Amino acid sequence: MLQISERGREMPPSPIRKLVPYAEAAKKKGIKVFHLNIGQPDIETPPSILDAVRKTDIRVLEYSHSAGNESYRKKLVTYYKTVGINVTADEILVTTGGSEAIMFGFFSCLNPGDEIIIPEPFYANYNGFAVAAGVKVVPITSTIDTGFALPPIQDFEKVITPKTKAIIICSPNNPTGYLYSRQEMEDLKTICLKHDLYLFSDEAYREFSYSGEYTSAFHLTGMDEHIVLIDTISKRYSACGARLGALVTKNKEVYDVAMKFAQARLSPPGLAQIMAEAAVDLPASYFNKPKAEYLARRDLLVKRLNAMPGVFCPNPGGAFYAMARLPIDDSDKFCQWLLESFSYQNQTVMLAPATGFYGTSGLGKNEVRLAYVLNLNDINDAMNCIEKALEVYPDRTEVKTMENAGVIL
Amino acid sequence: MLQISERGREMPPSPIRKLVPYAEAAKKKGIKVFHLNIGQPDIETPPSILDAVRKTDIRVLEYSHSAGNESYRKKLVTYYKTVGINVTADEILVTTGGSEAIMFGFFSCLNPGDEIIIPEPFYANYNGFAVAAGVKVVPITSTIDTGFALPPIQDFEKVITPKTKAIIICSPNNPTGYLYSRQEMEDLKTICLKHDLYLFSDEAYREFSYSGEYTSAFHLTGMDEHIVLIDTISKRYSACGARLGALVTKNKEVYDVAMKFAQARLSPPGLAQIMAEAAVDLPASYFNKPKAEYLARRDLLVKRLNAMPGVFCPNPGGAFYAMARLPIDDSDKFCQWLLESFSYQNQTVMLAPATGFYGTSGLGKNEVRLAYVLNLNDINDAMNCIEKALEVYPDRTEVKTMENAGVIL
Repeated sequence: MLQISERGREMPPSPIRKLVPYAEAAKKKGIKVFHLNIGQPDIETPPSILDAVRKTDIRVLEYSHSAGNESYRKKLVTYYKTVGINVTADEILVTTGGSEAIMFGFFSCLNPGDEIIIPEPFYANYNGFAVAAGVKVVPITSTIDTGFALPPIQDFEKVITPKTKAIIICSPNNPTGYLYSRQEMEDLKTICLKHDLYLFSDEAYREFSYSGEYTSAFHLTGMDEHIVLIDTISKRYSACGARLGALVTKNKEVYDVAMKFAQARLSPPGLAQIMAEAAVDLPASYFNKPKAEYLARRDLLVKRLNAMPGVFCPNPGGAFYAMARLPIDDSDKFCQWLLESFSYQNQTVMLAPATGFYGTSGLGKNEVRLAYVLNLNDINDAMNCIEKALEVYPDRTEVKTMENAGVIL
Repeated sequence: MLQISERGREMPPSPIRKLVPYAEAAKKKGIKVFHLNIGQPDIETPPSILDAVRKTDIRVLEYSHSAGNESYRKKLVTYYKTVGINVTADEILVTTGGSEAIMFGFFSCLNPGDEIIIPEPFYANYNGFAVAAGVKVVPITSTIDTGFALPPIQDFEKVITPKTKAIIICSPNNPTGYLYSRQEMEDLKTICLKHDLYLFSDEAYREFSYSGEYTSAFHLTGMDEHIVLIDTISKRYSACGARLGALVTKNKEVYDVAMKFAQARLSPPGLAQIMAEAAVDLPASYFNKPKAEYLARRDLLVKRLNAMPGVFCPNPGGAFYAMARLPIDDSDKFCQWLLESFSYQNQTVMLAPATGFYGTSGLGKNEVRLAYVLNLNDINDAMNCIEKALEVYPDRTEVKTMENAGVIL
């Protein structure tokens, strides 16, 4: 009998996919659903970069260079300079989204059976790429009580084995919004140098750092050979659908191997490269507006959440995600209930259960991730929904205080 | 010490990459190089489909559905009907080029260590995807003397083991241009049904079938569950740089697993989908012109080659490639020599040595692949170069005839 592959069976489904039918059913009932579940911003893609595509006079849409158009890579060099990263065009491999950069990184640096350490909660798709590459994810836990700070070095040391080949981090972080400090980045360097590990540094959200300064892996000195930078234009220019990213490394051997994988798939998307090349010409001031907008949203969301009895939401330093601990028994159940059984003023909210972001089973059961990708009014309305929902959710866990007991029961 | 991965080491480099520096050096010397080495057509991308992108009024370039926009998949259903393939939108997974469709197919259907049979010579990048997926390629040889017809069923039977899980074919073929007959496709069905194998059918070149009728794997009856169709718009609309393809299967289990890999990488390129959706609206007559152009080029190229002493070029039934047997000792050496040491009227030709398309080492040493992606004048000039080159190539193998002996020596 025909069989699907074992890795296909192991491949985790999208953690929020199972909620989609419930969201669709809610919409069919006429309920407005606020989507705080996905990192798809509503911020306008800069019109000038879409115009660059509109004005293109290409006659034949040809394969580009497998590493991306040289003209684009040269422009990226100037972009990286503005964020304190000094690289050459030959150290940049343009990829189909950050996703392909992760894949190429895993394929190039890791053997099947190798282990990669990831501070959890983490971007769920790292799991998928690890399964595709036959690599074992070893999570170490960061907790909501520290705002998801980097776990102490000892926690890394405890899980390092001869099979450990890399650490992957994301700062500012998806799903926690945590921004690693310079000291935390230095700690990672210490571990990587001591144990000869690659550091995959996913910096998709660098432009959206609010509290303190963003530290790139490439700001660290003396570990160039260890760094595989994962990048994307998806969030930077609100151009998620372009599917354009980059793998950046000064390790020539890694670059050359990644290039072989890149050659096998011929080239990254061509129209997106035209757009992205124009994006490098945006003035530095371009980021002020989206950044201010995200910051206002964060402040509103965090304030509203922490004002709800039994809710704790650490203030995220970057990206556009927040994790919140809720007084609930089971985040998967709660998120489904929000869509299936709840509405307030004919509105409800779709959230991402945090369980999907932990590698350790059982964690995240009372946490959810919220992406503040909607405007302030919608976020406010969504917070009203969550507030009311927590008042009436039948499996609320927390001991109720006297003040709100009347409302709940 | 940091190590690159074993699969990275095993990953074959692009077979023509090593010739690129020689082509660049030739150009620096002022020599015009005719590129018959790559499948990048010079045919114009239909202006109307580029216009669709130019006219787009999107405000935010969002992630599309992981399987591709539903509107596009629905249009693809109507496209497939025109080529006699009946599928639904839920059986189509839009991918980043045909390349990603191959990857998803391998990941979904094959375990590391599994074997896949490929009639050789074959598209060299199948090797790369096989290495990435940990799959072993088992070549069976088709020969230039039969014009690269499908090897007899017994040849398949000889190499089938319990590890054999699939066959991959490409018709019309890259690199041979061979178009499998209905009977050959039926033979493949017989083997797949008897041994429970998947049939990966790469139909990137279906629009360019000249001699006889193209048979899709989906034209076969009673084996729907076995078929994973690999498709792309690259050649169909001369839009190689768009990076848009599709995996099409009626095997729901395979589709669902491939979908998990698709979800991990979020979505296929968005701008390309706008373009491709417009492409489905091109009138059926659109293909007449490029097809007639390729046919005229094929006829010229094949006629010119076969008129050269000691050269044999079977007439390819489709695609835009031809394989030719030349009176040479070593095709890698010859192709390098063409760029490094030869010119005629200040022109030379870049060809692809056939060795890169064979899985069996030692084969293809006196064969080259020619892609007829240049206009008739250029092809004629390129043929003049090859003709002269064969006259003066120092390691010509064939016994010289009296007529041209004077010219050669």
